[in-house]
Amino acid sequence: MGKEELGRCEGKSRILIVGGTGYMGRRFVRASLRLGHPTYVLFRPFAGLDIEKLQMLFSFRNSGAHLVKASFDDKESLVAAVKQVDVVISAMAGNHIRSHAIPEQLKLVEAIKEAGNIKRFLPSEFGIDPDKMMDAIEPGNVTFIDKREVRRAIEEAGIPYTYVSANCFAGYFVGGLAQLGRLTPPTDRVFLYDDGNVKAIWVDEDDVATYTINSAVDPRTANKTVYIRPPANILSQREVIELWEKKCGNVLEKICMSREEFLNLMKGQDLAQQIGMTHFYHMFYDGCLYNFEIGEEAREASELYPHVTYTTVDAYLDHYLTIA
Amino acid sequence: MGKEELGRCEGKSRILIVGGTGYMGRRFVRASLRLGHPTYVLFRPFAGLDIEKLQMLFSFRNSGAHLVKASFDDKESLVAAVKQVDVVISAMAGNHIRSHAIPEQLKLVEAIKEAGNIKRFLPSEFGIDPDKMMDAIEPGNVTFIDKREVRRAIEEAGIPYTYVSANCFAGYFVGGLAQLGRLTPPTDRVFLYDDGNVKAIWVDEDDVATYTINSAVDPRTANKTVYIRPPANILSQREVIELWEKKCGNVLEKICMSREEFLNLMKGQDLAQQIGMTHFYHMFYDGCLYNFEIGEEAREASELYPHVTYTTVDAYLDHYLTIA
Repeated sequence: MGKEELGRCEGKSRILIVGGTGYMGRRFVRASLRLGHPTYVLFRPFAGLDIEKLQMLFSFRNSGAHLVKASFDDKESLVAAVKQVDVVISAMAGNHIRSHAIPEQLKLVEAIKEAGNIKRFLPSEFGIDPDKMMDAIEPGNVTFIDKREVRRAIEEAGIPYTYVSANCFAGYFVGGLAQLGRLTPPTDRVFLYDDGNVKAIWVDEDDVATYTINSAVDPRTANKTVYIRPPANILSQREVIELWEKKCGNVLEKICMSREEFLNLMKGQDLAQQIGMTHFYHMFYDGCLYNFEIGEEAREASELYPHVTYTTVDAYLDHYLTIA
Repeated sequence: MGKEELGRCEGKSRILIVGGTGYMGRRFVRASLRLGHPTYVLFRPFAGLDIEKLQMLFSFRNSGAHLVKASFDDKESLVAAVKQVDVVISAMAGNHIRSHAIPEQLKLVEAIKEAGNIKRFLPSEFGIDPDKMMDAIEPGNVTFIDKREVRRAIEEAGIPYTYVSANCFAGYFVGGLAQLGRLTPPTDRVFLYDDGNVKAIWVDEDDVATYTINSAVDPRTANKTVYIRPPANILSQREVIELWEKKCGNVLEKICMSREEFLNLMKGQDLAQQIGMTHFYHMFYDGCLYNFEIGEEAREASELYPHVTYTTVDAYLDHYLTIA
């Protein structure tokens, strides 16, 4: 990666990744191995029926990870898995367009409570902070309701936790210039949410993983939320578009879309699309990622781990130069 | 990989992989890069809408491959792509359980014919030799009919070709001991096709890729079929089961299934399942992979490339030891 990789943790912790074959989970596995932690990956029965997942698990083992068999339908197996490690990071799917397994984590919370040995649990979050979203609109509020339910269960069980709020994943948001349904830059015209001037925060998924592993073993982040706000990546949609225009030498036609137009567009979409669009709405009209101060009770990742050289949005956009 | 990787080819060829993000395609890309060929990967428009494919394509580029944009709906773009290289390898899907794009290759044949510069084309094959399957039963015969149609189009166009017959992919067949719907070994009982004594041939997919890239640039394989028959991997189903039993120290109950029982089991399955089961039938009852001599008109890969250290079935089974 060409990045300075050493964490600030003194020793190394045994880290179990749950959901290790998913989009973020595989990055947590690789980052944990890269940072030198004894890394364990939960091997659930269905993974044995999916050749891509199975072969990915084998590749993790070839890279030094331990595979731990357990099923969410067998609590004792989960407890036994959890007892082998110090830290548990869940990357279970929380994206309705792919799948949504957030509530299933309550079984993991129960197992961690029963095992009694876990020094830190990171539930699957890595997006918008659900506790800031008490007034989110339907139907996308389901994501926040479910994540809050998991948070409260963790807190009631007295399990030490860290909640990582990672903002916009670059792969999903930067390449498509935050256009709905696009992962690569448009060549002709681009839609702006309102005037495109609301600040958002865009983070390379590999950096999310590096910051997450660092924070999972850091005494300073115990029972705290960690926001990932790399300073160079706090940018409005318009600023991201301008970075791209400068890079590719092509000026795009800009079409501003009002809140009302956006909400009208949601009607008639399927539920998963509507949920995703609700999140776009709160991020790009309300500015929910950056309309609050972090305060004393939480921490910011790039401040905690200044040795991590994160990928800037400007550099990230280079990926798209030869394919646009 | 710990394998002797050097090909026998004198110079290096520019190789274009079509279907490079698929199960075999990604292995061809990696093998081509590993063997030092200038490697090109077709970037089709839909890949830009699938974040896994898009990020895999970026990772290929980071490893040194060139991404070439083209669409199967735009012949000129395909011709332009083909004109940049010497060799074209298609890994377009030919598996009804995942997807079946074999007939779409006729557009690629047209483009290669028009471009006129291609020194070798390898259509998507890598399984049972379709020209040996004139009497295959329905509905699985569709695979062979479609692959033969592509072969005949290539030959009529006068395009130099190599057809690679790779037999049973280890990931799909070895781990599950050739059980239907299993990718990992059963722990209690195992079904044998007849008495399980028909010889089949089992090949690690990464070895398929290494042999394929070698044969794609080899003058000896021009206009020939290459069969991959690694001597240690010519084994009956029963022999594979016995290797596993010895390795894991557990004897499985064996249930023999007659041809009639197997054909009855096919009834009521969906079409994709029936197609797959037809192929099992021909491999494990008829022995279609090994019931013929290669003869003078074709070649065998492990003889052509003795420097390639292939993975034996016995070694491949080690993957499954800690998860069984």
